[in-house]
Amino acid sequence: MEVGEGSAAGRGYRTRRELKFKKNEEDFEEWYEDVVVKGELIEYYQVSGCYILRPWCYSIWESIKSFLDAEMRCMGVENVYFPLFVPEKLLSKKKDVEEEEEGEEEEEEEAKEPRKFAAPPEDQEKVVAWVTKSGSGELDVPVAIRSSSETIMYHSFAKWIQSHRDLPLKLNQWCDVVRWESKDPTPFIRSKEFLWQEGHTAFGIKEEADAEVQEVLEVYGRVYEELLAVPVIQGVKSEREKFPGSLSTATVEAFVQGPRGIQGATVRSLGQHFSKAFNITFEDEAGAKKRVWQNSWELSTRAIGIMAMVHGDDRGLVLPPRVAPIQVIVIPTSGASSSSETTNADAADLSQECKSVAHLLQEGGVRSATDPREDCTPGWKNAYWEMKGVPLRVEISARDMENRQVTVARRDLAEGANGHTTVVPKHELLETVRELLDRIQRCLLESARQQRDAAMAVALNWQDFKTVRQRKKMVLAPWCDEVEAEKQVEEKLRRRCKLMLRMPYELDNNTHLSLITRMITTLSADTKCFVTGKPAKSWGLWGRSF
Amino acid sequence: MEVGEGSAAGRGYRTRRELKFKKNEEDFEEWYEDVVVKGELIEYYQVSGCYILRPWCYSIWESIKSFLDAEMRCMGVENVYFPLFVPEKLLSKKKDVEEEEEGEEEEEEEAKEPRKFAAPPEDQEKVVAWVTKSGSGELDVPVAIRSSSETIMYHSFAKWIQSHRDLPLKLNQWCDVVRWESKDPTPFIRSKEFLWQEGHTAFGIKEEADAEVQEVLEVYGRVYEELLAVPVIQGVKSEREKFPGSLSTATVEAFVQGPRGIQGATVRSLGQHFSKAFNITFEDEAGAKKRVWQNSWELSTRAIGIMAMVHGDDRGLVLPPRVAPIQVIVIPTSGASSSSETTNADAADLSQECKSVAHLLQEGGVRSATDPREDCTPGWKNAYWEMKGVPLRVEISARDMENRQVTVARRDLAEGANGHTTVVPKHELLETVRELLDRIQRCLLESARQQRDAAMAVALNWQDFKTVRQRKKMVLAPWCDEVEAEKQVEEKLRRRCKLMLRMPYELDNNTHLSLITRMITTLSADTKCFVTGKPAKSWGLWGRSF
Repeated sequence: MEVGEGSAAGRGYRTRRELKFKKNEEDFEEWYEDVVVKGELIEYYQVSGCYILRPWCYSIWESIKSFLDAEMRCMGVENVYFPLFVPEKLLSKKKDVEEEEEGEEEEEEEAKEPRKFAAPPEDQEKVVAWVTKSGSGELDVPVAIRSSSETIMYHSFAKWIQSHRDLPLKLNQWCDVVRWESKDPTPFIRSKEFLWQEGHTAFGIKEEADAEVQEVLEVYGRVYEELLAVPVIQGVKSEREKFPGSLSTATVEAFVQGPRGIQGATVRSLGQHFSKAFNITFEDEAGAKKRVWQNSWELSTRAIGIMAMVHGDDRGLVLPPRVAPIQVIVIPTSGASSSSETTNADAADLSQECKSVAHLLQEGGVRSATDPREDCTPGWKNAYWEMKGVPLRVEISARDMENRQVTVARRDLAEGANGHTTVVPKHELLETVRELLDRIQRCLLESARQQRDAAMAVALNWQDFKTVRQRKKMVLAPWCDEVEAEKQVEEKLRRRCKLMLRMPYELDNNTHLSLITRMITTLSADTKCFVTGKPAKSWGLWGRSF
Repeated sequence: MEVGEGSAAGRGYRTRRELKFKKNEEDFEEWYEDVVVKGELIEYYQVSGCYILRPWCYSIWESIKSFLDAEMRCMGVENVYFPLFVPEKLLSKKKDVEEEEEGEEEEEEEAKEPRKFAAPPEDQEKVVAWVTKSGSGELDVPVAIRSSSETIMYHSFAKWIQSHRDLPLKLNQWCDVVRWESKDPTPFIRSKEFLWQEGHTAFGIKEEADAEVQEVLEVYGRVYEELLAVPVIQGVKSEREKFPGSLSTATVEAFVQGPRGIQGATVRSLGQHFSKAFNITFEDEAGAKKRVWQNSWELSTRAIGIMAMVHGDDRGLVLPPRVAPIQVIVIPTSGASSSSETTNADAADLSQECKSVAHLLQEGGVRSATDPREDCTPGWKNAYWEMKGVPLRVEISARDMENRQVTVARRDLAEGANGHTTVVPKHELLETVRELLDRIQRCLLESARQQRDAAMAVALNWQDFKTVRQRKKMVLAPWCDEVEAEKQVEEKLRRRCKLMLRMPYELDNNTHLSLITRMITTLSADTKCFVTGKPAKSWGLWGRSF
């Protein structure tokens, strides 16, 4: 709790702020909840599994939104808003799609798994929340709250799409969705309600739909790597974890303490399952009637949670400069001036100097603010802004003011920045700050990438695989791409470990992933599956998921 | 329906588009629904009272959002997101506030009405939608869906506000809200779900809270007048129509066909009702514990509906340039070139010319597009873009191309623009278009203002009031500002007529309203209430509301 009670002098929130837990594997989840609450991203709410997104968090979400909106505009995607409610009959159509897809397995190249391995549609149904009454009585027909908008939108798609000229249709909405999960909730990661964008697109030609999957994965990858400084790997979920009703579900996967993989955003290749169920057809140029090919793709506020998990440390949040609501906080400190004593007049001058420095930075396009609170010590303020993850702290003492200089401290720990401060002449500040912000952005990504790579190893056979798993690393292994392999791993290995990602994509889609790049080139015609011994078809990433 | 069925040649949407209804008092509501559907703002949905906001509409909403977000930033308001769900116990707290407020009437200066005249809290309760079960069974405790977020937010306010240093607290959220109305739904105006922003603020001093009411009213007024070109009047709702639990509810009121008043946005002065119920207190500078003063204020997608009602005509939507997603549509027409016949090559050249003109406009900051569809006639395209309300149409024929000129047509009917076209040399086009867009924006507001003023008259006594009401005009009348007057009007007059607005604001807040400005200066010490004969205290605006 950052806000205490009692008299002004003894109020808890003017005393030192500290995290209760350390960032290590045992305490990881407690540490994480502590960080996102004390860093003022979220606040708990009276409905379990619902969270309040505070201004500090919402501003980060707005940065993500404006980046994605610009990218989507370039892709020709238009924003819309469809209703929150789904009538029962539409929802049952979705169930049809899921069941049909199961029944059709043999037809579809991508769905070769036996029925029991497909994600059970009941799981999706179980989390649907139902409105059954209003203040004035029971509803004639209950309505569900959207957990995703496929069924809500595709009835309209069938209306709007008639000719090949109406294609591609590319729509997106920013909205809240509800999944009434009974599992333990975790802020941003698993909650009853969350915010996301969901793109829904329809194409006349399968190849165009497939190309879009790749295009969107790239954009999502840039949200994580360029904005949030979180390294990700592109891949395809296992059949058991794909979205029911999709041909395949591609994701960008991030990695957190453990190490564990965590799904960052997904792109679902829906094929023609929904266009069959909703009768979404068009006349091609020759006048023939055809079904459209569809994708749906989404990125949610979960991205903010992943960012907090990856960069945070024992002192709280660490925000990448590109999304930090405040990039530089300017704090007056007590360093005495060369004259005898600090007077009120001096304090006023110092406060004015801080404002003018913050203004100078703002004019230069840097998001900065001052913290003039008089009832907090500079030490308390440092701890407060560290906990909120502000990338740079500028301290100004009376002596600094006399010498036309300021003291700059980095929040991140990269490049030995831990606690070190640098004195910078005031006239060089703007340039220094800009360089440092760029540098911090790069360092955070690089350091997260190194940690991720260090937590990953390659295994070419079962013995290596077991050894590496004992060392708790994630394993990249060549495999036969059959569910048989997944089953064998489960049976032979006691520890929790599963296929996180299949990696069918071309090398240049994962250029940042040096390890994979190096390894994947070694996959030759005689490489065998590490577990079944059959010919290997692709690389798989195995380990635990968050 | 703009999208027909059958073969490409006979498809409905390539044939002439027309509105079914005329814009007059009898057909008004049918005309309106026809316009917003055919103008592609909304689409009906399978849950009655829920509507799909199409890209054309959502883009207008985004213009409003970005204008308001910028204004709110200047006011120091921060964006947040609170949960969709309200636990039962919090909702009952709101009911307490409403009942307490009723019980306290004598204490409050602003609440002098007898109980039966206060808006019944049951009305609010009746429209609340309840989630009672999820896919996996009945919920232990049902949760309501927000119809407004006072009760959701103020529990946190009590936590976050401790000291005078934490004030003012100014939060806003953009979200969807649900009101399960049983009345006939109307797109944008009354729907089960709609989008809005809701600002919630807390102050240490009543005067600051009051000043904010005025500040927000100004901003809302500018959304209507500057962006949507809809003239509004600021005023205060009658006691019977104010938000239950507020001291008073200020609004900006717009006017539509009828004439009828329609509430454009509201600012609720909540006083200390909620700070009492939720125990939101702070320590002032002297260490004394005090309750905060609160406001809440909101503007919804209703604004888009009002805009469509005010400017639309028998040919469809008319969009003010500042919010039109496309400001200029460029269409190739069939005017033959001086050479013998139009060949395919000519058509390709013409299409290229249209693109280059649209590009030239885009480069100049004008939102423009071309309509190259080959299976539609120029006449069909004209009707289509008129129906969508695009402010300017640029037509280019082969002859225009030769002569380095284009033909420009205005969508609006002001200044005798009806159907007239102007030939403009291509090198003057950008400048001409910019001037015209500015001019249209001004004309739309001015013309709506003239219509509004013409539908309004002043009455100083009962006889005049009756006469003016018989002519169906709205009436500005000096009155005693007591509920007694409202009751007498109801009893004496058979027609539907009520107090739409009390106007306590200073003249300079309504400078645009020339009529009121002129009249209000005549309110002297011996002016009597037009109905009770008691001394007049302010002007009231009487008539029908939408």
